[in-house]
Amino acid sequence: MAFLIEADRLKTVLRASTLADGSRRENSGEHSWHLALYAMVLADQAAPGVDIGRVIRMLILHDLVEIDVGDVPIHSGDGTAHASAAVQAAEAAAAARIFGLLPPDQGAELLALWQEFEAAETPDAIFAKALDRVQPVMQNLASGGGTWVTYGVTSEQLDSRVGTRVARGAPALWDWVRARTRAFFDDRPER
Amino acid sequence: MAFLIEADRLKTVLRASTLADGSRRENSGEHSWHLALYAMVLADQAAPGVDIGRVIRMLILHDLVEIDVGDVPIHSGDGTAHASAAVQAAEAAAAARIFGLLPPDQGAELLALWQEFEAAETPDAIFAKALDRVQPVMQNLASGGGTWVTYGVTSEQLDSRVGTRVARGAPALWDWVRARTRAFFDDRPER
Repeated sequence: MAFLIEADRLKTVLRASTLADGSRRENSGEHSWHLALYAMVLADQAAPGVDIGRVIRMLILHDLVEIDVGDVPIHSGDGTAHASAAVQAAEAAAAARIFGLLPPDQGAELLALWQEFEAAETPDAIFAKALDRVQPVMQNLASGGGTWVTYGVTSEQLDSRVGTRVARGAPALWDWVRARTRAFFDDRPER
Repeated sequence: MAFLIEADRLKTVLRASTLADGSRRENSGEHSWHLALYAMVLADQAAPGVDIGRVIRMLILHDLVEIDVGDVPIHSGDGTAHASAAVQAAEAAAAARIFGLLPPDQGAELLALWQEFEAAETPDAIFAKALDRVQPVMQNLASGGGTWVTYGVTSEQLDSRVGTRVARGAPALWDWVRARTRAFFDDRPER
């Protein structure tokens, strides 16, 4: 219960992306819920052998470390901040603290699931990462550009920072989405 | 994708309960995320044979109908509004519309899962309902009373409106929580 009450704080961590209607910034708790729903609905986009139940669990807990570290937007720091060594070390420390609130066996199990997500090497984690990357794209398309406008992102930067991850876990999904992002960027005046 | 974008609106549906720190009202999207985490962490409280993966899926989608109907607090209308025939009919219509945004086979599957949750007759649904009822209790305890103060709820009303549902799906959990709710109400002056 101490863990579950502490987890409540994820609802106060604000992301760079907004709701689809652009009315306010999204928080990491509701973002995690939305991703779990993505996994349920887009399960047919996963590679054979992917365990959607494990993917959903990964997505439920994948952002808990942000309670300590905050959200580091994918396009911030010209696309380099998100995966920096400093951020990764801070997130590892946060994971140790937060999952350490659980009984030891359970804490170790959830920590391992988070580490698997972060490493993005297993088929389950690769699909989970694809969904984590594609949902903000859909939010930005819905809200008229969102963080692409905020951070001055180009279509090519979107492909390299986001598209490669989505395509790795859900190639047909990225084909579908990329047609829409290309249309979005093509319709914008030259920057 | 039309369904997933529509689902985003659940993040704008406000519940009566607040965050654990009392800073603002909780929305139904982040509430659904928190419940999925409850299911992961409290799986050992479920009856034998409960499929936690199905419970998590039920909890992810259980409140989507609130996009059309809004949240009807459990203690509103002196405890009668939540399960009224009018609310149930409105929620059924909302489910038909919202799950109708999905491809027909998938929409039927998710609608059936929502209906199973609402009926609260299968072991999976009974456990999911128990978590849906106990999370606001924990939020209220953390925030100093929350909706119990708002609606003038007594310890006995809490037992009958909430405790019976929690105890049905997770009896040991309710024993643990009830000791804390009793202590909370005992410490309050007579109303």
